[in-house]
Amino acid sequence: LRQGFPEVIYGEGKTAAQIAGIAEAIVERGAPLLVTRLAPEKLATVEAAIPQGTYHALSRTFMYRPKRAPKPKVRGYVAVVCAGTSDLPVAEEAAVTLAVAGHPVREIHDVGVAGIHRLLRRSEEIAGASVVVAVAGMEGALPTAVAGMVGVPVVAVPTSVGYGAALGGVTALLGMLTSCASNVAVVNIDNGFGAGFYAAMINRK
Amino acid sequence: LRQGFPEVIYGEGKTAAQIAGIAEAIVERGAPLLVTRLAPEKLATVEAAIPQGTYHALSRTFMYRPKRAPKPKVRGYVAVVCAGTSDLPVAEEAAVTLAVAGHPVREIHDVGVAGIHRLLRRSEEIAGASVVVAVAGMEGALPTAVAGMVGVPVVAVPTSVGYGAALGGVTALLGMLTSCASNVAVVNIDNGFGAGFYAAMINRK
Amino acid sequence: LRQGFPEVIYGEGKTAAQIAGIAEAIVERGAPLLVTRLAPEKLATVEAAIPQGTYHALSRTFMYRPKRAPKPKVRGYVAVVCAGTSDLPVAEEAAVTLAVAGHPVREIHDVGVAGIHRLLRRSEEIAGASVVVAVAGMEGALPTAVAGMVGVPVVAVPTSVGYGAALGGVTALLGMLTSCASNVAVVNIDNGFGAGFYAAMINRK
Amino acid sequence: LRQGFPEVIYGEGKTAAQIAGIAEAIVERGAPLLVTRLAPEKLATVEAAIPQGTYHALSRTFMYRPKRAPKPKVRGYVAVVCAGTSDLPVAEEAAVTLAVAGHPVREIHDVGVAGIHRLLRRSEEIAGASVVVAVAGMEGALPTAVAGMVGVPVVAVPTSVGYGAALGGVTALLGMLTSCASNVAVVNIDNGFGAGFYAAMINRK
Amino acid sequence: LRQGFPEVIYGEGKTAAQIAGIAEAIVERGAPLLVTRLAPEKLATVEAAIPQGTYHALSRTFMYRPKRAPKPKVRGYVAVVCAGTSDLPVAEEAAVTLAVAGHPVREIHDVGVAGIHRLLRRSEEIAGASVVVAVAGMEGALPTAVAGMVGVPVVAVPTSVGYGAALGGVTALLGMLTSCASNVAVVNIDNGFGAGFYAAMINRK
Amino acid sequence: LRQGFPEVIYGEGKTAAQIAGIAEAIVERGAPLLVTRLAPEKLATVEAAIPQGTYHALSRTFMYRPKRAPKPKVRGYVAVVCAGTSDLPVAEEAAVTLAVAGHPVREIHDVGVAGIHRLLRRSEEIAGASVVVAVAGMEGALPTAVAGMVGVPVVAVPTSVGYGAALGGVTALLGMLTSCASNVAVVNIDNGFGAGFYAAMINRK
Amino acid sequence: LRQGFPEVIYGEGKTAAQIAGIAEAIVERGAPLLVTRLAPEKLATVEAAIPQGTYHALSRTFMYRPKRAPKPKVRGYVAVVCAGTSDLPVAEEAAVTLAVAGHPVREIHDVGVAGIHRLLRRSEEIAGASVVVAVAGMEGALPTAVAGMVGVPVVAVPTSVGYGAALGGVTALLGMLTSCASNVAVVNIDNGFGAGFYAAMINRK
Amino acid sequence: LRQGFPEVIYGEGKTAAQIAGIAEAIVERGAPLLVTRLAPEKLATVEAAIPQGTYHALSRTFMYRPKRAPKPKVRGYVAVVCAGTSDLPVAEEAAVTLAVAGHPVREIHDVGVAGIHRLLRRSEEIAGASVVVAVAGMEGALPTAVAGMVGVPVVAVPTSVGYGAALGGVTALLGMLTSCASNVAVVNIDNGFGAGFYAAMINRK
Ligand SMILES: Nc1ncnc2c1ncn2[C@@H]1O[C@H](COP(=O)(O)O)[C@@H](O)[C@H]1O
Ligand SMILES: Nc1ncnc2c1ncn2[C@@H]1O[C@H](COP(=O)(O)O)[C@@H](O)[C@H]1O
Ligand SMILES: Nc1ncnc2c1ncn2[C@@H]1O[C@H](COP(=O)(O)O)[C@@H](O)[C@H]1O
Ligand SMILES: Nc1ncnc2c1ncn2[C@@H]1O[C@H](COP(=O)(O)O)[C@@H](O)[C@H]1O
Ligand SMILES: [Mg+2]
Ligand SMILES: [Mg+2]
Ligand SMILES: [Mg+2]
Ligand SMILES: [Mg+2]
Ligand SMILES: [Mg+2]
Ligand SMILES: [Mg+2]
Ligand SMILES: [Mg+2]
Ligand SMILES: [Mg+2]
Repeated sequence: LRQGFPEVIYGEGKTAAQIAGIAEAIVERGAPLLVTRLAPEKLATVEAAIPQGTYHALSRTFMYRPKRAPKPKVRGYVAVVCAGTSDLPVAEEAAVTLAVAGHPVREIHDVGVAGIHRLLRRSEEIAGASVVVAVAGMEGALPTAVAGMVGVPVVAVPTSVGYGAALGGVTALLGMLTSCASNVAVVNIDNGFGAGFYAAMINRK
Repeated sequence: LRQGFPEVIYGEGKTAAQIAGIAEAIVERGAPLLVTRLAPEKLATVEAAIPQGTYHALSRTFMYRPKRAPKPKVRGYVAVVCAGTSDLPVAEEAAVTLAVAGHPVREIHDVGVAGIHRLLRRSEEIAGASVVVAVAGMEGALPTAVAGMVGVPVVAVPTSVGYGAALGGVTALLGMLTSCASNVAVVNIDNGFGAGFYAAMINRK
Repeated sequence: LRQGFPEVIYGEGKTAAQIAGIAEAIVERGAPLLVTRLAPEKLATVEAAIPQGTYHALSRTFMYRPKRAPKPKVRGYVAVVCAGTSDLPVAEEAAVTLAVAGHPVREIHDVGVAGIHRLLRRSEEIAGASVVVAVAGMEGALPTAVAGMVGVPVVAVPTSVGYGAALGGVTALLGMLTSCASNVAVVNIDNGFGAGFYAAMINRK
Repeated sequence: LRQGFPEVIYGEGKTAAQIAGIAEAIVERGAPLLVTRLAPEKLATVEAAIPQGTYHALSRTFMYRPKRAPKPKVRGYVAVVCAGTSDLPVAEEAAVTLAVAGHPVREIHDVGVAGIHRLLRRSEEIAGASVVVAVAGMEGALPTAVAGMVGVPVVAVPTSVGYGAALGGVTALLGMLTSCASNVAVVNIDNGFGAGFYAAMINRK
Repeated sequence: LRQGFPEVIYGEGKTAAQIAGIAEAIVERGAPLLVTRLAPEKLATVEAAIPQGTYHALSRTFMYRPKRAPKPKVRGYVAVVCAGTSDLPVAEEAAVTLAVAGHPVREIHDVGVAGIHRLLRRSEEIAGASVVVAVAGMEGALPTAVAGMVGVPVVAVPTSVGYGAALGGVTALLGMLTSCASNVAVVNIDNGFGAGFYAAMINRK
Repeated sequence: LRQGFPEVIYGEGKTAAQIAGIAEAIVERGAPLLVTRLAPEKLATVEAAIPQGTYHALSRTFMYRPKRAPKPKVRGYVAVVCAGTSDLPVAEEAAVTLAVAGHPVREIHDVGVAGIHRLLRRSEEIAGASVVVAVAGMEGALPTAVAGMVGVPVVAVPTSVGYGAALGGVTALLGMLTSCASNVAVVNIDNGFGAGFYAAMINRK
Repeated sequence: LRQGFPEVIYGEGKTAAQIAGIAEAIVERGAPLLVTRLAPEKLATVEAAIPQGTYHALSRTFMYRPKRAPKPKVRGYVAVVCAGTSDLPVAEEAAVTLAVAGHPVREIHDVGVAGIHRLLRRSEEIAGASVVVAVAGMEGALPTAVAGMVGVPVVAVPTSVGYGAALGGVTALLGMLTSCASNVAVVNIDNGFGAGFYAAMINRK
Repeated sequence: LRQGFPEVIYGEGKTAAQIAGIAEAIVERGAPLLVTRLAPEKLATVEAAIPQGTYHALSRTFMYRPKRAPKPKVRGYVAVVCAGTSDLPVAEEAAVTLAVAGHPVREIHDVGVAGIHRLLRRSEEIAGASVVVAVAGMEGALPTAVAGMVGVPVVAVPTSVGYGAALGGVTALLGMLTSCASNVAVVNIDNGFGAGFYAAMINRK
């Protein structure tokens, strides 16, 4: 465990066999396992090695958390909030990262800033969280709106969703960095894993 | 009048004497007058020529609308909405531009996305407008939130307010262009005049 | 209907089956239907569900407007103007968006700024419009030239047409934002839908 | 208090009189006070109104924390780490923000990545913190090096220190966002206040 | 003479005395003299050395062309075209450069693309030129419109006029480089001298 | 003929049948024909329509110049200079454009700035030209070096050759625009056609 | 030999036959041979021509150094240091370049700044080198950390590894250029060959 | 001495008294002293403390090398080459840095790529150097041309000289990084000190 955290394999640029090998070693040790960016065509090989694992197709993550894995002491639950369907893969990557580390997660989807009433309808659930992960592409306004509704740290994740002036996520990234809310910090574009990891670290008691 | 609009003098880079000269000619013709970007040190000269005019110090605009100037037929009022005090100069430039053209204006300030409840408290007044001008710096999220509350066109104005990743207004500009609301169109950074002009054009019957 | 507008499905990233499903629900309700960014390979499935719809191949839009759909009260017609053949897909997306919402449209093509006389030959038709959508790639000069010929709002759409210094539409976008005409506002690169939607909103009485 | 935090006045663009006025109201209420970006030439006026306050010249912050202000329950101390003397103003802004909110702070200076042994000499003190604020300009490598030494969240602050390819802090910002350590999140360039605020929020029990 | 051209002193970053010294040597040799970017405060010294010279305040150029200087054989006259008053300094730098080299120049001002009829009214004069220098800031559309009216090379000069999305002239520069007219080539932002020099070279027989 | 120039078909984004159709009409009229950016897979169709034409595979240009086409009166020959083999396609596009317009061309290859002696060995041939087209990618230094060797206009073409900091040709473009030689003007990245066209225009008597 | 260095073929954009032809001529002359960027599908042809050569699959380099090739006089060995597995191809390109030129190389992998202790464990080996090549992507902090551990020149190579704010290697490049260590100079993104070449030049006695 | 090098004080942002204090301590220790970026208004104080030192006004450097300071063993002399007068301050910073470290330096000025013959006239002197520092602004082509003339490492320094597309030195920086010569490595914009330091390190035996 790096810093008490499940071991994570970054799947991009590794062969299915390499991933399966490292994964087996982790699981044998009894540790929770997380593979991110696992392309579907590599799944069969990894699943053959770790049949007890679960693949989340949207986020392309593969995880296994043994029943007997020690639960972390936590402050409460983490809310993972996102706006559009296109942001779901990144939000799911954050949620799976939190889950494999044993943190309770509430996923709150389809609450964009352009439809503020849908967001307000979920405000109690969001305000009850100990940490919030807010995921958004395009103009990236969601973390700011959410930050104004809560008294806890918000971890903002820009996504590469959008076209033209969205500049592959750079617009959302810049928007989040210049948030007029002070309880917002930012991770890299599409880095759902990093946001989940960071939120877990805050949520540990 | 260009396109039936009051004549406008862009004050930047002109001497006080040049501005006063052009202004006098306009006023003699009986037309409404608007001077934008009028530096305070040029005011005395311009005021000496047009003593009946009004200077708005925040936006550095000088205007005069003769009583007998023909009122445009309008759809309703224009709401000029902004978040922070730093955006006020640009919002005022838009409001003065609308006023000199004879359009009713409602100014709604201090309603940022990070304090969504303050914005919602003003929602009826905003929703009653025929056009909305939404002014915001930093992450530029206000136009999107406002656009979701109204059924009319929103003219978004990014401002150069902020530092670091605000990139002199580019971040707000990009954010507005990638708004997930469809009733948003955008003008140049700090272009309060352009937004007021465009809103006036929409609001004419 | 969001804001009295036909319901729109953004086809990118949705499966043919998903699109067909949402589309059927919309049509059953008696509402006009618009699908944008519908890849040709998904057409068969959508057409099977909505055989009465029409596919516009250039803009990859699919639309159906029921005969009995209530006509909006409009100010007049909307002119959709563009320069080169490469800008046609975006111009058509705007025109189809307006048509499905029941607005009269006049399409004016092949009128670039480098051949100013072709543009002038169409000036009466353009000047007669209540709103203009002006579509251009590369240096994006068309909206400015058109804006000087009319006394109504121009909605400018930059396109990603061009290579090298065209920077995927960013050059056209920046050019439109710095237009020396004041009756120009801008939407995102290639956002024909957004421009049509915004023009429709202005054109409603 | 916004989110249980001392009230903060952003001094940039406000007159000395405006700042003194708001500050007096805060102090009368018995709340802790923080003024950031307070230019030295405005100090006399503010000090006259709040003689019990302290000015930190490097960071241009003014603060007052009443003896009887309720202490927050905290996890431990916050380490504020920076490399060069040029980063000190931003580090101090973070430290003062934490102090006014009642959090214990340890300041660790002059520990750049190019002199790794100086950093290692302080590793125990850094590793004992509950949260770390890491401040760096130029290539912005310090947060990554620090993150590898601790098992807690690191709040990274890029500074605008440097010239040429430092691009006014953008290089440090981008470097921190692409940190190969997962326990790093980032705030805006030179935003020492934001980092201190965010760290305080994490450090609350 | 470099390439048969008058000798040019780039005034920026040189002292008045240095400039006067080089200038005297040039004039003694009987060669035509051009000083560009000559700040007004250095004028007295230079004028004292070369009392027969002329200062053009707008473009901050100083020139002297001896009566007996050999006239170049030319194709015809060069048209120097620009839109707004803010572009005049750059246009004048080009015109003075051509004049000191002995080329006939016609200056055509106040002909922007947003007022196409003013441009068309001058079309005969423009079309009669052997080369055209077209100067424009902001969206930089003028060279394209002009290029469509002539059958000769157009030398396009972007200017740093404008704010916000004008990006200090980069927007005009990019727009000119992606001109849909083929008889356009581009020099650096604000480089009136370079454009005049290049046009002179083309205009030589 | 636009501006007395052969008619040009930009092949990108047109079908083979469309190109063949336009080409036939041009050839029937007895005019010279140039097709640029003609993908090899469209060649068969175009060749079937215009069997007398020639395809240049490197530059993907197709041309036909009838024997009886009137020769333009020219100043002399045009030198098309480039450094590496990777720049050859763009250089050839320029050379073919000049050839189809009836201008004499000398192609001078493999003369980069890093091997200055190879360039000097060709200096006489270059200096004898009436116009020079200089093509270069990466740091784009060739036009400057060439410009210092000649007393005629140089048309500089940046290419998208290179990786990393070459930024798809932007580095070469910027370098050419800031050339310390004054007889350099620039066209868009990879725009061999534009450079050839512009050089032809200068070379006409 | 260019500057006493083995001859190098840049494989990108050349056919297998072209490469094989040039390679044969080099080998016949008795010179060492290096082919960089050799795509695997071209290998068979090249290997058929030079069966005594070796292909390094990771870096896609092909090399042959004849036994009798004269050894350069060297200062000592060159350390090639990199952090992640994704940087290995670029590091290997540098190492192979050095090897074919006859320089002793020590490869030190898996020593990122986020795990500073792994780097320190190798410090003696690194400090013993005469020159260091340091390869890193993402935030590019490794060269700075390494530079602080040695008293010799460090050649820094940014890689295009990473996503989002890594900007294809630009972030690492900028970070290395603004290194607070003075014994760092930088080559282009992914330019392992250039770094190896430069290090070899320094290492020659 | 860091890495056997004279101690260096970076003068920017330090008071005259601070600099004088550090400088005295260094000189008392008998070590050579270098102060860079020393503003002229701080000179009196520093000179009072170290009367035996020398100020180089162009580069704003102050240095003192005691007679008895041990001479480094060197390979040969270092050539510091630059093009225009505007690049002299940066070139001088490099030369002074080398001199204070005891390295022989030859300064070669006024040899730009646009006047290649002036460069060639100095080629023997350049080719005799053990290392070359090449300083250039604008298009930054000089290091490439120089690199082709020598068989030793070239340290390239971009300068912020120029306007418009020079982008404050970024254009020169990018050009040097994409040099087609392999014996070129690059330091930050205007970093004459860094280049001198790096060259000294290479030149040590
Ligand atoms: N081509 C388009 N570009 C930008 N936005 C679009 C486009 N087409 C549809 N939209 C927006 O996307 C929404 C539907 O998104 P979705 O629910 O994902 O299908 C619509 O209400 C529009 O606001
Ligand atoms: N305004 C200008 N912009 C760009 N280059 C210029 C300008 N004025 C002069 N030059 C160039 O600078 C050279 C003179 O530079 P200098 O010897 O430094 O005075 C001339 O030969 C021109 O090539
Ligand atoms: N390779 C090219 N790059 C830029 N513009 C070109 C190119 N080839 C042709 N053109 C221009 O495109 C026009 C023909 O475009 P089209 O009518 O779309 O075939 C010509 O008149 C030229 O002005
Ligand atoms: N002009 C310069 N540009 C970049 N780095 C410099 C410069 N001058 C000095 N330095 C570096 O700054 C260090 C001294 O910084 P300081 O301790 O702040 O005076 C030196 O050891 C050098 O590494
Ligand atoms: Mg913040
Ligand atoms: Mg929109
Ligand atoms: Mg406008
Ligand atoms: Mg991270
Ligand atoms: Mg062109
Ligand atoms: Mg030039
Ligand atoms: Mg350095
Ligand atoms: Mg290199």
